[in-house]
Amino acid sequence: MSEIVPVSIITIGDELMIGQVVDTNSAWIAKEFNASGFWVRKRVSVGDDHDEIWQALDDESRKSKIVLITGGLGPTADDITKPLLSEYFGTRLVVNQDVLNYLEKLFTETFRRPFTERNRKQAEVPETCTVIHNAKGTAPGMWFERDGVIFVSMPGVPHEMKAMVSTSVIPRLLEKITTGTILHRTLLTWGIGESFLADTIQDWETALASRLKLAYLPSFGMVRLRITGTGTDRASLEKELDEEFEKLKVIVTQWLVTDRDENLPEVVSRLLKTAGETLGLAESCTGGYVSHLLTREAGSSEIFKGSVISYSNEVKNQLLNVDEAILSKEGAVSEATVRAMAEGALDALKTDYAIAISGIMGPGGGSPEKPVGMVWLAAGNQEELITERIQFRYDRLRNIEMASNAALNLLRRFLGKTNNMAS
Amino acid sequence: MSEIVPVSIITIGDELMIGQVVDTNSAWIAKEFNASGFWVRKRVSVGDDHDEIWQALDDESRKSKIVLITGGLGPTADDITKPLLSEYFGTRLVVNQDVLNYLEKLFTETFRRPFTERNRKQAEVPETCTVIHNAKGTAPGMWFERDGVIFVSMPGVPHEMKAMVSTSVIPRLLEKITTGTILHRTLLTWGIGESFLADTIQDWETALASRLKLAYLPSFGMVRLRITGTGTDRASLEKELDEEFEKLKVIVTQWLVTDRDENLPEVVSRLLKTAGETLGLAESCTGGYVSHLLTREAGSSEIFKGSVISYSNEVKNQLLNVDEAILSKEGAVSEATVRAMAEGALDALKTDYAIAISGIMGPGGGSPEKPVGMVWLAAGNQEELITERIQFRYDRLRNIEMASNAALNLLRRFLGKTNNMAS
Repeated sequence: MSEIVPVSIITIGDELMIGQVVDTNSAWIAKEFNASGFWVRKRVSVGDDHDEIWQALDDESRKSKIVLITGGLGPTADDITKPLLSEYFGTRLVVNQDVLNYLEKLFTETFRRPFTERNRKQAEVPETCTVIHNAKGTAPGMWFERDGVIFVSMPGVPHEMKAMVSTSVIPRLLEKITTGTILHRTLLTWGIGESFLADTIQDWETALASRLKLAYLPSFGMVRLRITGTGTDRASLEKELDEEFEKLKVIVTQWLVTDRDENLPEVVSRLLKTAGETLGLAESCTGGYVSHLLTREAGSSEIFKGSVISYSNEVKNQLLNVDEAILSKEGAVSEATVRAMAEGALDALKTDYAIAISGIMGPGGGSPEKPVGMVWLAAGNQEELITERIQFRYDRLRNIEMASNAALNLLRRFLGKTNNMAS
Repeated sequence: MSEIVPVSIITIGDELMIGQVVDTNSAWIAKEFNASGFWVRKRVSVGDDHDEIWQALDDESRKSKIVLITGGLGPTADDITKPLLSEYFGTRLVVNQDVLNYLEKLFTETFRRPFTERNRKQAEVPETCTVIHNAKGTAPGMWFERDGVIFVSMPGVPHEMKAMVSTSVIPRLLEKITTGTILHRTLLTWGIGESFLADTIQDWETALASRLKLAYLPSFGMVRLRITGTGTDRASLEKELDEEFEKLKVIVTQWLVTDRDENLPEVVSRLLKTAGETLGLAESCTGGYVSHLLTREAGSSEIFKGSVISYSNEVKNQLLNVDEAILSKEGAVSEATVRAMAEGALDALKTDYAIAISGIMGPGGGSPEKPVGMVWLAAGNQEELITERIQFRYDRLRNIEMASNAALNLLRRFLGKTNNMAS
């Protein structure tokens, strides 16, 4: 019988302890493993410290069947994971001939740099480990097994680690272990607070079977609801999840943005792709962030033609044709200006739809009439524009993120209203 | 005598275990505490699971003097941290009158929503805790002390947690505890690989005093070097760090981008601000990301006038005046096109400098002549433009990030070359 296999992730590096970098590896690994039926029960980060790493290996291998380790494999003196693992598993470092050949070829043929002694040391691995090929970099991955626990050590460089997980680590684990099933259903609501939502769905939530678990995830002024089911029989779990999910959708229908596990840029892109229509933007205070949210998705050129980032009034006037009289009388942050910006974007970029955004993101630039966090939004097409004024109360980056999501949501509402393009 | 105080961070939530969200709270907390002289020795994330949370509290309070906890304080059934803490500290939940008054006022006056029973429950806290006011939200923070260890529980919503840490938690801790001193010196290099850099500075690194620690942090094709010093006498530590940092700078001078703890957008912004000059962009494949990197910094309107995100060829032609013959003959990803885009941006946006970027970010869109990851960059002014072709080999988002940083670096090199605006 298959079971849910507990996994720990240990990320290593002083940069994590002093907050110089955000750990994006753990989330990515957790998502991939979860999708393959493993349950990440704990994530741990420690510095480049022998005793802390050792203790973490001891602690995590006591409760998890799989311990994934990233970081500390570089060629420099602060990287101590490899000798430590050699010591931890009571073995010694030896040169692996396959890795050595690969590295020599990589340096002389691809990098066209001399192959130094320091690089040669990267071909050393603990004698008892199984090497995992690093197709995207120089530090090899290492696989150990002891007392029924599998340990996998990988580089901390995200794209190297990701390639290793997808092409080697998960496939090998699935050959050895039959996992249980973990399934999710996710929907996104807009226009209802977390508490009200909880009250609204309380009867349904209370009646949920114990193998189904509900989570509330507030994000950018919306609330995401996720039902997670765990079990061994996929078919019956799918059926049960689908039934409960349908009931939930009926209860929250008036606030429903999407019933898929997608974010707002993905919702808007999907609606436009389905309709075969295009979008252009006029961004002021969001400074290109909405354009980035749309274009970071593959295939965005189908729907996204371009943007004018009109940070200064001169650019608003000259590229978007916003009347100087509007700018001087109403100001750059006004309904009249975002209307004119949206019209200007439709004309200049020749798209079916446009979004325009102008506001004050802070910390400076506010006034009693137009405080920091005030944003005007417009969305629509040549026939009609809808506008909205919102007051945010966060820091600059958060205001940018919130305003960007609110702008995409305004367009989503417009699309739903005019074209019956509901999700 | 002051000492380095060990801290643990525990973040709670199933969303962290399934990888639905990236934990940005831990990095932010670590940075703030580090700057105040605390050493974060471990970061732990667990799900909304009673036993895992309990175990984490036990484990971390054994080795750390301060245990910071975020998440699981919301008003919904999946949030179990508050009753668990009440149980952990052997007390019971009671309504806190100050919190109740604050919440009633917030709901009736600010939110203008009914104050429900569920909201009222948010005013309940464990009887023995000290409440920390949540100025940005509804869930109060909680402070406990036991056996010389301080536990602080905070909401997981980033801006609520941040306000609490900055205005309450760190000030209160500094009243109670005299911390040691942790200082950093950071520089950024470009054009030298991590291994070569390590070989180049090896003699200097080997001779470093034991209370100074060197770290190599590769990022976006550059390598950041950070010296961290810990001690009790701030003045002598500052002096020793400065002396070693000066020696290091001399060794790496030819690759030095900046000797401050700033990223590339900050370097470029600072150089332009100092010179009183302005920048405009013509972005294609990076889709607004370079504009976002510049405008997410406060005060960016001093140097940034605007951008044209010319994702389609029509927009390249109509807003940037890129000749249709160039686009059809050389293609959108070509030196001729990025030159014309940069010239078009200088003319349209009327700025002193411009950057232009065009490439293929993948996963689709590549060809044998122009493979995925190929990017053309141009940077310069009306007198001169420099260009560069780079081939990246990452996934789409990483290619966008790398191309954006490479473009900013090209402008930085141009500024250094023409105006003697070295950092």
